[in-house]
Amino acid sequence: MNAIEIIQTKRDGGTLSAAQIGWVIAEYTADRLPDYQMSALLMAIFKEGFDGEELAAWTDGMLHSGDTLDFSDVAAAKVDKHSTGGVGDKVSIPLGPMVAACGVAVPMMSGRALGHTGGTLDKLETIPGFRTALDPPEFRAILARTGLVLAGQSETLVPADRRLYALRDATGTVESIPLISSSIMSKKLAEGLDALVLDVKVGRGAFIKEAAQARVLAETMAGIGRSHGVPVRAILTDMSQPLGRAVGNACEVAEGIEVLRGGGPADLLEVTYRLGEEMLLLGGVAADRAQARARLREAVDSGAAFAKLVEVVEAQGGDPAVIHEPERLARAPRETVVTAPRDGYLARADALDIGVAAVRLGAGRERKEDPIDPGVGITVLAKVGDRVEAGRPLARLTWADPGRLEQALPLVERAFALADEPVAPPPLIHGEVS
Amino acid sequence: MNAIEIIQTKRDGGTLSAAQIGWVIAEYTADRLPDYQMSALLMAIFKEGFDGEELAAWTDGMLHSGDTLDFSDVAAAKVDKHSTGGVGDKVSIPLGPMVAACGVAVPMMSGRALGHTGGTLDKLETIPGFRTALDPPEFRAILARTGLVLAGQSETLVPADRRLYALRDATGTVESIPLISSSIMSKKLAEGLDALVLDVKVGRGAFIKEAAQARVLAETMAGIGRSHGVPVRAILTDMSQPLGRAVGNACEVAEGIEVLRGGGPADLLEVTYRLGEEMLLLGGVAADRAQARARLREAVDSGAAFAKLVEVVEAQGGDPAVIHEPERLARAPRETVVTAPRDGYLARADALDIGVAAVRLGAGRERKEDPIDPGVGITVLAKVGDRVEAGRPLARLTWADPGRLEQALPLVERAFALADEPVAPPPLIHGEVS
Repeated sequence: MNAIEIIQTKRDGGTLSAAQIGWVIAEYTADRLPDYQMSALLMAIFKEGFDGEELAAWTDGMLHSGDTLDFSDVAAAKVDKHSTGGVGDKVSIPLGPMVAACGVAVPMMSGRALGHTGGTLDKLETIPGFRTALDPPEFRAILARTGLVLAGQSETLVPADRRLYALRDATGTVESIPLISSSIMSKKLAEGLDALVLDVKVGRGAFIKEAAQARVLAETMAGIGRSHGVPVRAILTDMSQPLGRAVGNACEVAEGIEVLRGGGPADLLEVTYRLGEEMLLLGGVAADRAQARARLREAVDSGAAFAKLVEVVEAQGGDPAVIHEPERLARAPRETVVTAPRDGYLARADALDIGVAAVRLGAGRERKEDPIDPGVGITVLAKVGDRVEAGRPLARLTWADPGRLEQALPLVERAFALADEPVAPPPLIHGEVS
Repeated sequence: MNAIEIIQTKRDGGTLSAAQIGWVIAEYTADRLPDYQMSALLMAIFKEGFDGEELAAWTDGMLHSGDTLDFSDVAAAKVDKHSTGGVGDKVSIPLGPMVAACGVAVPMMSGRALGHTGGTLDKLETIPGFRTALDPPEFRAILARTGLVLAGQSETLVPADRRLYALRDATGTVESIPLISSSIMSKKLAEGLDALVLDVKVGRGAFIKEAAQARVLAETMAGIGRSHGVPVRAILTDMSQPLGRAVGNACEVAEGIEVLRGGGPADLLEVTYRLGEEMLLLGGVAADRAQARARLREAVDSGAAFAKLVEVVEAQGGDPAVIHEPERLARAPRETVVTAPRDGYLARADALDIGVAAVRLGAGRERKEDPIDPGVGITVLAKVGDRVEAGRPLARLTWADPGRLEQALPLVERAFALADEPVAPPPLIHGEVS
């Protein structure tokens, strides 16, 4: 095998063999292929793409760069959900317990805040004592006992992805459908799942802004799942405005708990139930969507889903008191409200601007090593299409540092736009792919 | 300035500013931009190309990565010739002395054998004692005194090119017209020339096989010259079969000396005189091609050109005895002849196969650090179009190591093909660009 020939083949639009792809990833992971050759290859892949077999081989190479988990001894079907990332996307927090309460095992591996989007791990860690770094035996034990784990990715899973992601980040090769798809799917396939539900976000606050491109990404990931024998169902959901009301960390946990108590904003409920339906169907515990929704509703109404969250928080060392009393979660001391300057209809509540504003407040990271502030956040108080009167609060910023507020406030103000005529709210579900 | 933004801009087909290009090359040369970012950018440039202003800026950045020479105190016009590389291309050896003898200063900086092509430096170093590594003061002194220098590129000229070339070689980004053009032109512009003649080789034994692509390369280099105020004239010459008869090192020096003594094979003579005409015209010492050719012929017939070679060899520490008696040059001890298997017309004498065979014999390098054997080589005894009878010698291999002969011989045998019907020789000159 020769790295230069492999680079030249892809550069000229040719097709790489599974053996070539496997060799390149193995050599890179073993530090025998230098970064400068891999980055040239990544750029060639960015420009020329992959066919289905190349994509399966690339994913396979990543998958086998480290350990893979095997939960075949856990009797229940194992189904995870992965979101491509959004603003206010706290779906995992109520969804995991709801689905687990219905008898589907959920070995959920989440990530951290990235760019303007939040990360489930950062949110969960606002629960005092809650540990998201579990080694495989502990992960397995908790999954077997509670049917639910809410953890970070183990260091030993897909090490090639960590190195390749850092290299892509530094070489302008991030926004490539095959590279994004294989990165996500290799990590999910390493979890030993029976099936996977994808929440592919679309719109200003998502990494992919256009529905057509989001559909290509969803189809690409579903194809990888098929080639590895793992059924994948993807729902394309709206991320033009934040999901729900809370954008931050502790405040998003609180909103997730609200859903498990039968409350919560309508858009968050709809996305959570829609994804839950797919998880129950793929997990084989419901015959159709109506039955699945009824089971999820029952798990909430009976308190079983809430109890499941308490159970998993205790299993992972967290303090269940904050689940019972979310007002005990961290909360920054000061509040500033942005109000409507005039009467009108809300035409825009830009998820990207609001996501960046939350990062500026300290809810996310400018650099990978930055700490996050669990108690800051933004509460979005109006949805696109709402009739608003002058002076009505549109958003509330919860903050600690005036310098950070100063950076965030103009972004929140410009995130909102009013129209004189009624505005139709955007569709919440843009489509589905399987 | 941000390296990732620059990579993304080129990746997406955008145009880089002169400031961005200058910054990227300066940072890379100063070791502040890592190889992995440069290789991603090189691949993006490979795929997306450069417009004229980007190309001028890239060349400029390379040019100013190190020292540039200034020979404005040398009164004569300074004109160099550069060949894109071929097999049997010993043109520089007679051409430099011929042009210098006509009153044009020739500060010739040459390279080493690369791949299947020979290198003028390696050939010249078969002259005992001849030094090609001259520092700028010595280079200048010899140029001022003799009007001719035959040397290697100084280490302090265009250091960015050495690093970029090594990186391109390792990352599949060599065969890019803008990168090749700017690499050649930055080195030539750093020599402080008044004008430049390019010998752009076309055909199997050249790096560029197609005349149309060679013309694009020539036009691109001429455009760079224009943007830097240096007139460039390019002649596209045939490299489907080796030039002249000798392919090797010492044997090519001997054939070059033959030209200065009024002999030499017709194709070598024609290319040498054609390029010499352009150098005299650009150097302002002839009014038209006919006059230029007459002056070159006179320099050979009078012995002035031969005397110039003797003079420069002495100035650079070489033994002039081998110029007077070329049979004293190195010559490997054994010979093997390849003959025509039947009557016919020579239809092919493949320059690539013969060039690779010469490398196998030891005339070139498989790896950069390999030594070359000055005395081995191949003498091509028939030209495409020649009528040949069964048993007539087509090539003679001069060799030292039987293991190497064994590798070279099948390549030489397959290089030749016979036809039953008469074959037209290929045109020697494919076109010109200025």
